[in-house]
Amino acid sequence: MILDELEHPIVLAPLAGGASTPELTATVSEAGGLGLLASGYLPPEGLEERIARVRELTDAPFGVNLFVPGDPAAETPGLDDYLRRIAPEAGRYGAELGEARYDDDGYAQKLVLVTEQRPAVVSFTFGCPEADRVAALKEAGVEAWVTVTNPREARIAAKAGADALVLQGSEAGGHRASFPDGDDEPLSTLVLLRLVSQRVRLPLIASGGLTDGPAVAAVLTAGASAAQLGTAFLRADEAGTEPAYRDALPSRTPTALTRAFSGRRARGIVNRFMTEHSAEAPAAYPHVHYATAPLRAAARKRGDADGFNLWAGQAHELAQKGPAAEILRSISDSARQALEAAANRAL
Amino acid sequence: MILDELEHPIVLAPLAGGASTPELTATVSEAGGLGLLASGYLPPEGLEERIARVRELTDAPFGVNLFVPGDPAAETPGLDDYLRRIAPEAGRYGAELGEARYDDDGYAQKLVLVTEQRPAVVSFTFGCPEADRVAALKEAGVEAWVTVTNPREARIAAKAGADALVLQGSEAGGHRASFPDGDDEPLSTLVLLRLVSQRVRLPLIASGGLTDGPAVAAVLTAGASAAQLGTAFLRADEAGTEPAYRDALPSRTPTALTRAFSGRRARGIVNRFMTEHSAEAPAAYPHVHYATAPLRAAARKRGDADGFNLWAGQAHELAQKGPAAEILRSISDSARQALEAAANRAL
Repeated sequence: MILDELEHPIVLAPLAGGASTPELTATVSEAGGLGLLASGYLPPEGLEERIARVRELTDAPFGVNLFVPGDPAAETPGLDDYLRRIAPEAGRYGAELGEARYDDDGYAQKLVLVTEQRPAVVSFTFGCPEADRVAALKEAGVEAWVTVTNPREARIAAKAGADALVLQGSEAGGHRASFPDGDDEPLSTLVLLRLVSQRVRLPLIASGGLTDGPAVAAVLTAGASAAQLGTAFLRADEAGTEPAYRDALPSRTPTALTRAFSGRRARGIVNRFMTEHSAEAPAAYPHVHYATAPLRAAARKRGDADGFNLWAGQAHELAQKGPAAEILRSISDSARQALEAAANRAL
Repeated sequence: MILDELEHPIVLAPLAGGASTPELTATVSEAGGLGLLASGYLPPEGLEERIARVRELTDAPFGVNLFVPGDPAAETPGLDDYLRRIAPEAGRYGAELGEARYDDDGYAQKLVLVTEQRPAVVSFTFGCPEADRVAALKEAGVEAWVTVTNPREARIAAKAGADALVLQGSEAGGHRASFPDGDDEPLSTLVLLRLVSQRVRLPLIASGGLTDGPAVAAVLTAGASAAQLGTAFLRADEAGTEPAYRDALPSRTPTALTRAFSGRRARGIVNRFMTEHSAEAPAAYPHVHYATAPLRAAARKRGDADGFNLWAGQAHELAQKGPAAEILRSISDSARQALEAAANRAL
């Protein structure tokens, strides 16, 4: 397992949709963590370029994250009403709505690409790959990690042959990785870790709300092999986070789950767009994502943090700025101190 | 601080409404944890009897929990519609709806009582006592703990002079302890602990979803002085948990927040009553509590777990049965092992 070789038991979350850069991935890996590179929303050739760029920057192992596509025939009730509702938002930002369409995010081609390119790890989000695809990755020397949000999904992933599970708790920023996009109340990171560890004998990578060292230490104590952190790196120099998004991160504004931006539940810092549209937003992914993409791009360009998605975990105000390698080392040092303090208390 | 004197850094949650018994409180305290005794829904004289009973059973320190009353003049929009909606539920169980009324739970008299009786700790739920009441308790040699659900409430409680804060995370079973009953997305136990520890210098008792030793070890590692556990003791021999409720606890049925039973958000194992009524239930506490009390009692009597509240935290399936002292020791031992294992990994 790659996890056994890491200097720091910390994995960079994929951060699809803008914050992910090859520089961030490479820096985290080079500094002794494991950088994941997002492939979501990139064309396969864009992913190939980014993988090449990571390899220019580091010889250290890294991972690639893939989105498992949903059912192309799935119904999208409420989509048309929602598009009518948000059309004025596009006008407000001098944009048009994009085409509300299904897309498989180039999954099959990306799978071929990663099997050829052989990063150390391929992690999956939004579903579980078939057992033969997992087997093909493993034969190519690539570890297959599957992101899960409840014990049922954990068992499905274990049965498919996953090498490790990324456990995404309720606190996590960005999209819920759940296989279907449901309305159930998500389990917290700590509860998910305890429930899954009772049922599945696989290395578990805890994620969701882990933004400082003591939180990382906590999940390691509760049985995680590593912690996956996204929000903690959003203010890193190497991240692609837009300035208005960066500025929102250290605020005390709460987060909430919303389908307003993408048609799939995701956690972001509450802003005007969420407040006005979350209640009406349908489960229609990636249709709503593509429909809102131009208006979100226009809002970003204007620096208007009320008009685009500010994905962030519940502990976003703890995210530090600076070089990613320093952020990583600072979190790792403080995790070690927390573990030592707890041990002194116990003994 | 009483926390410094405990053999096990584990506090029994109050468990108002049936599961709390003097026997359970006394057993946890006698075994080296800190038992809290619920006063919610008891008349002051009932509380006095229970305190006396605890003292017959143990000389060890224990605590009492009080509900801080809400505003008697608060509006209850939607209450009448909801009462009409659930009237057939009462009929179904051969009961009548109770009077949907405001009540202060005898707060003033109970405060006088605990100031006279002087348990080691008085903890507060649903609000923060005024600074002079906190001061009066402290002068009487009683520690005042305030339950909070976000950093803002933590600062209010610290300013009022609280000796310690109980941090209730999203995972917790039973009523949300939030000062107002809002619709915000609750913070997880671990996130709440990290955010509050950055702002308030007081001993913090983490609660919510902590049902086994590694979870307790995790919050101690992340900076908690102790862990407060409720669901973990619901199957204890000494608990007042009804048989049908007991039987539901080891199931894998998910939990959700609901106002269906009481008019205030609370987490319980999903059952028919919740499924049918949660969406329509108003914020009207304790009015809805009193209205549904007779039908819930009737459902309990019939052993119908679909007709009453099955308060439980997200990790309820991990709750063990047996004598409370054994449950306490088992959780404490396994917490110690988790801390030692984490320390060995760190060093």
